Amino acid sequence: MNLLLVEPSEREEPGLARVDGRRARHLRRVLGKGVGDSLRVGELDGEVGEGTIEHMDADAAWIRYVLHEPPPPPSPVSLVLALPRPPMLRRTLQAVTSLGVKRIVLLHAARVEKSFWTSHSLTPEAIDEQLRLGLEQARDTVRPRVELRRRFRPFVEDELPGWATGRRVLAEPEPGAAAPRASEEPTTVAIGPEGGWVPFELEQWRAAGFGPVSLGPRILRVETAVVALVTRLGPA
Amino acid sequence: MNLLLVEPSEREEPGLARVDGRRARHLRRVLGKGVGDSLRVGELDGEVGEGTIEHMDADAAWIRYVLHEPPPPPSPVSLVLALPRPPMLRRTLQAVTSLGVKRIVLLHAARVEKSFWTSHSLTPEAIDEQLRLGLEQARDTVRPRVELRRRFRPFVEDELPGWATGRRVLAEPEPGAAAPRASEEPTTVAIGPEGGWVPFELEQWRAAGFGPVSLGPRILRVETAVVALVTRLGPA
Repeated sequence: MNLLLVEPSEREEPGLARVDGRRARHLRRVLGKGVGDSLRVGELDGEVGEGTIEHMDADAAWIRYVLHEPPPPPSPVSLVLALPRPPMLRRTLQAVTSLGVKRIVLLHAARVEKSFWTSHSLTPEAIDEQLRLGLEQARDTVRPRVELRRRFRPFVEDELPGWATGRRVLAEPEPGAAAPRASEEPTTVAIGPEGGWVPFELEQWRAAGFGPVSLGPRILRVETAVVALVTRLGPA
Repeated sequence: MNLLLVEPSEREEPGLARVDGRRARHLRRVLGKGVGDSLRVGELDGEVGEGTIEHMDADAAWIRYVLHEPPPPPSPVSLVLALPRPPMLRRTLQAVTSLGVKRIVLLHAARVEKSFWTSHSLTPEAIDEQLRLGLEQARDTVRPRVELRRRFRPFVEDELPGWATGRRVLAEPEPGAAAPRASEEPTTVAIGPEGGWVPFELEQWRAAGFGPVSLGPRILRVETAVVALVTRLGPA
């Protein structure tokens, strides 16, 4: 936790917040912080700055803070991700949030196991937890928007044209695909399931204007490929 | 497992190997493979090609195979990594192996917890397992060399000058550091512990010719930062 994320609703007065639960335990037990110690603070969806622990009890910590700068700039890369298996989903959401991705669609595909959609990791609370961990890691305050789409074709045919602005990129381990190019331009990248997209899906992506890019001959795990692509497609 | 990795010692005759244990179970249970099914095969430290399952019993599978091409090219990036906590170490070794890194030093530093050095994850068998998982993922056959260095100063002062050929890069979240530049040139990147290097260590890195590069204002988890750096520093 490199930044304590407080919510506007946790303010007891302007510049004084009471935090409890995981964050209070982490401050005390992992970071070993006590009354008088300082730390980086940010308000959810707001600015970041500095704070001091004014008081602690068994359950909570009271932080006095001043916000004075904007959170780090967002990544121009948005993700359409075939739903990965639950542990990989959790790590991927946290990692891409820490990289500043702000728009994520989790999409069904022929090679996504249906059981993944019933995972506890897809509840709004479980997703929100991973996003907050990613923000705390990267000292950001702005959660990405995560949307679930359980039907491939209606999303790609009907919704995607309005959703994907700028460059459109399909991540493929295929030979012949172009290497990713760094850019400030808004970019949407679609990343397939383990085992890849099926031919029908590939046709749909092509019809939607997604050109293949490749990270080379190596097949990477989803969580590795996503980090590599967001890094390579974003600003140099 | 995108490639079945066999060892020369597992050959029963040229082009026929018997594999057991984790790989045999994975073939049967996860991939659902049976007699007559084909799969990608590689020999440890050798070439890759295609094989067919000739026979299976409760414990093992016999694979007939032909090797016909070299493994994917290695990454020019070598890593000196302050020893991360064990779960992160396992994921990081697997990820960087899948990215083709071939030389890794795990180094002590002031902010590395001493207890990390007693982890089971540092046994040769445990490290080897992660390397093989990374190779199987990326269809590679050549394990990275992983060395453990429990004393910071003798390594950086005495060993590193011979070890680090080419570019020398210190990963830092500091403002003012240069952005990483893609290159085919051999590059050694040093990545600090959670909490960063202490001032004495930073001086040692500078004295050893390591110039700071930054991935921007975001502080990333080690496993995310490593993937981002290897991707950004390697060939475009």
